[in-house]
Amino acid sequence: MDSGLTAALITIGDEILIGQIVNTNATHLSIRLTELGYSVETIISVSDREEAIRSTISDCLDNYNVVITTGGLGPTHDDITKAVLLKLFGGTWVRSEEQLAVIRQIFEKRGRTVSDLNLQQADVPSTARALINETGTAPGLWFSRNGHDLFVLPGVPTEMKFLMDERIRPVLKQKNTTSIILQKTLRTTGIPESTLAERIGPVEQFLPGNATLAFLPSFSGVRLRVMVKGDDSVKLEKELDRLTAFLAEKAGSHFYSSEDEDLEAAVIRQLKSAGQTLSVAESITGGLIGDKLTNIPGASDVFMASLVTYSNSAKTVFLDVRTETLNRFGAVSEATAAEMAEGIRKRTGTDFGLAVTGIAGPGGGSQEKPVGLVFVSASSAAQTETRRLLIPGDRKMIKERAAFSALNLLREFISPRLQP
Amino acid sequence: MDSGLTAALITIGDEILIGQIVNTNATHLSIRLTELGYSVETIISVSDREEAIRSTISDCLDNYNVVITTGGLGPTHDDITKAVLLKLFGGTWVRSEEQLAVIRQIFEKRGRTVSDLNLQQADVPSTARALINETGTAPGLWFSRNGHDLFVLPGVPTEMKFLMDERIRPVLKQKNTTSIILQKTLRTTGIPESTLAERIGPVEQFLPGNATLAFLPSFSGVRLRVMVKGDDSVKLEKELDRLTAFLAEKAGSHFYSSEDEDLEAAVIRQLKSAGQTLSVAESITGGLIGDKLTNIPGASDVFMASLVTYSNSAKTVFLDVRTETLNRFGAVSEATAAEMAEGIRKRTGTDFGLAVTGIAGPGGGSQEKPVGLVFVSASSAAQTETRRLLIPGDRKMIKERAAFSALNLLREFISPRLQP
Repeated sequence: MDSGLTAALITIGDEILIGQIVNTNATHLSIRLTELGYSVETIISVSDREEAIRSTISDCLDNYNVVITTGGLGPTHDDITKAVLLKLFGGTWVRSEEQLAVIRQIFEKRGRTVSDLNLQQADVPSTARALINETGTAPGLWFSRNGHDLFVLPGVPTEMKFLMDERIRPVLKQKNTTSIILQKTLRTTGIPESTLAERIGPVEQFLPGNATLAFLPSFSGVRLRVMVKGDDSVKLEKELDRLTAFLAEKAGSHFYSSEDEDLEAAVIRQLKSAGQTLSVAESITGGLIGDKLTNIPGASDVFMASLVTYSNSAKTVFLDVRTETLNRFGAVSEATAAEMAEGIRKRTGTDFGLAVTGIAGPGGGSQEKPVGLVFVSASSAAQTETRRLLIPGDRKMIKERAAFSALNLLREFISPRLQP
Repeated sequence: MDSGLTAALITIGDEILIGQIVNTNATHLSIRLTELGYSVETIISVSDREEAIRSTISDCLDNYNVVITTGGLGPTHDDITKAVLLKLFGGTWVRSEEQLAVIRQIFEKRGRTVSDLNLQQADVPSTARALINETGTAPGLWFSRNGHDLFVLPGVPTEMKFLMDERIRPVLKQKNTTSIILQKTLRTTGIPESTLAERIGPVEQFLPGNATLAFLPSFSGVRLRVMVKGDDSVKLEKELDRLTAFLAEKAGSHFYSSEDEDLEAAVIRQLKSAGQTLSVAESITGGLIGDKLTNIPGASDVFMASLVTYSNSAKTVFLDVRTETLNRFGAVSEATAAEMAEGIRKRTGTDFGLAVTGIAGPGGGSQEKPVGLVFVSASSAAQTETRRLLIPGDRKMIKERAAFSALNLLREFISPRLQP
C-alpha cells in the first residue's frame, strides 16, 4: 500500500504554540497528502523565530520527499518566513506580476489603496517558483533541493486550501506516477466497531493485497475507509465499487452513505429525491437539528420549519401538546415527544414530523428522570414511533447526541416509507 | 514577562498524521502551559513507530524544561509508548495498586469482566512516578532526567485534561516559584483591531513592565488578553483589575465581557439578572441562535422558544407575518424581519423578540438580493430596531455571522432597556 513517498508538515507562528488556534490546517493537508499516496511522518509547530524556522525546514527537507509549511507570510514585522527562505536558498527578490495583479484587484474591490507593504507580498525569491494565490495577497512558494520539494503556504485556511488543492495537488499527483490511489468512506451508525468487524469477517478473505480497510469509530458511528492502489484507474474503480457494495451489504440497515456524508445530508437527499417534506419540534436540542439540516444547500426544498419549544407553554401553543399530557407525564416523556412529533407534522402539513425532548443538565435531573434522559419521536400520517435514550456526557455532548439520535430515527423511519 | 522555562508537546499516533482527528489536545496543553508561565517552543506529532517516539522524546527532553506527550497508552498492540519508555529510562514494571483499584471500579460499573490486558494498564516503569487517572484506565507517567520533566498522558481528551489539570498543573506551579502569572481576557465586538488600538493608545504609556497585552482578532470581534506577572498575588490582582477597567472603558459600548464569555452567555446573564425573557424567530440561521442560547446552562429561565420558520407559510402561520409584506417586500427584507421579531415577541409573551432572515446561498441570490444579504431585528413592547447586513463567506460562515450579528444587535438593544 505504501508508495514509499514521505511528507512533513510545518506550521509557523505563535498562535498555535500559545493555544490560541487549533491546527486545522495540518488536518486538511494530512488528508490531502494521504489521498495522494504520501505518508505524513511528522507535523511540527514552531514559533516565528528565525533559527527555529530555518533549522526545522532544512532538517525536514533532508529527510522527507515533500515538506509543506503554513504561516508566517503576512505583511507585518513578525512574518519572517520569506526572508528566512531567501537566506536558506539564496537568490534575489523577483516581483511576480501575476500575483501583483491579484493584489491590486483585491484592494480595488475593497475600495482601499495599496501600500508598498502590500505590493511587497508579490516578491518571490528567484530560487523559488511562485504559486499564484487567487484568494489572497500572499503567493505560495515552491523550492526544490536534492529532488525533495518544499511548498510554502500562507496560514489563512481558505488560501492554504486553494493553493494545496489547485497548485500543489496536480504537482504531487504527477510525481507519484507509480501508483494511483482511490478511496471511499462508508458511513454506518448504531453498530459497535467490534460487531461490524465480526459481520464483515476476516479482512484477508475479501480484501486484495492492493487494498486497505480502516475502521474509524466516533460517537456518531463507525466510518469504513477503503483504499485501493494500482496503475489502472478503470480497474481500480471497479474494484472499489465491488468492495463498497460488499461492505454496505454487510453493514445492512446500519449503512447510510458511501459518500462520507453526514446523516442530515443523507436524510435531506432521500427526502428530496422522494419529493417529501419535513418539520421538526425541538426542545433539548434548542435548534441544533434545524441548524444541521439547514447547513445542507437546498434544504429549503424539504425542510419547512423547526419549532424550538423550550417552555411548556410553547409546546401547547405551537404544537398542540395537551396540558393534560404535560401535567401527567411531564415535558420529558414518551407521550410528550409523540405529541410534539404529531403536532409539528399536522401544524406545518409536512409528510414527516420529528421531535426531541430531554434533560441536558447540569441542573433539572431527578432520580426518576436523570440528566441525559431523552425521547425522540418520528411521525407520519400512518404511524408515530418513539424511542427512549439515556445519553452520557456534558450538556453540549448530550445535545449533540440527542440531535444525532433523532436524525437517525428519522432515517430509519422514512427509509421504508419514502414514495418511490 | 518570560519566566525562561520552556516546554515541548509531543502527540503520538497515526490518527493526527492521516488527518483523521484535529490536534485539540495540544491546544488545551498549550493554553495551560502558557498560563503557568512556560513558553511552548514546539509541538510535534509522530507516528506509533518506536524509533520516532524514542528519538523525539529524548531530543525534546534534552532541550526543554518540560515535555508532555499524549497518546499511545491504550491496551492494543499499536500502543507502544510505555514499552519504548521502559527501554529509554530503564527499570522494571511495577503494578500501581491505586490505578488497579480505579480500573476494577470502571469495569464493575460497566458490568464487564477485567482482562489481563486491562490490568496491565496499571503497570508503570519503576523509573517513573504514576499519575493516577480517575477518569480512565491508563495512568499518566512522570519521568525526570537532568532536572527536566517528562509527563506521559493518554490521548483521550477527558483523561488528558484530568491529568493535566489535577496532577501536572500543581507540580508545574510549584516549579515556577519565581513568578505568579494572572490573566484576563476581555471581549469586544464591532470595532476593528486598528481602531481599538488607536483608542487604547500607546501600550507603553499605561502598561507596566510586568504586563503584556495581546490583541486577538476573529470574525466575532477582538479579544484583549492582559497578563501580569510578579510575586505578590494581592498586588497583581489589583493591577489586573485596574488594567481591565481601563481597557473596558476605552472599548466603550464595544466591550461586553471581562470573563472571556461568548456573546450568548453575556446576553443570557444580563437578561437573567434583570428577570426578563426572550424568544427568537429564525430563518437563515436555521436554529443556530437557539442552539447557541441553549448551550448556556440555565438558559431555560430566560429563553422560551425559537421558531425556525424556513418556509413563507411558516412565517405567516407561526409569526403572523402578513402575506402582503411577504408579497411586496419578500421574505428577505427589513419589513419581514421586523414583523418576525414583533410576531415572536407577541406570540410568546416575552419581553424581547429577536429575528433574522437572509440568503445563505449558494443558490437563491439575485442582483438585487445577493447571497449574504441578512436582516436582523430586535423588538420590545416600545420599539423595534432592524439592521441590514451584507455578509461574505460560504453558507456556514454566513449562518454563523448572521447569528452573531443578531445576538450583538440584541445585546446593544437590551442594554439600556433592562429593568434594574
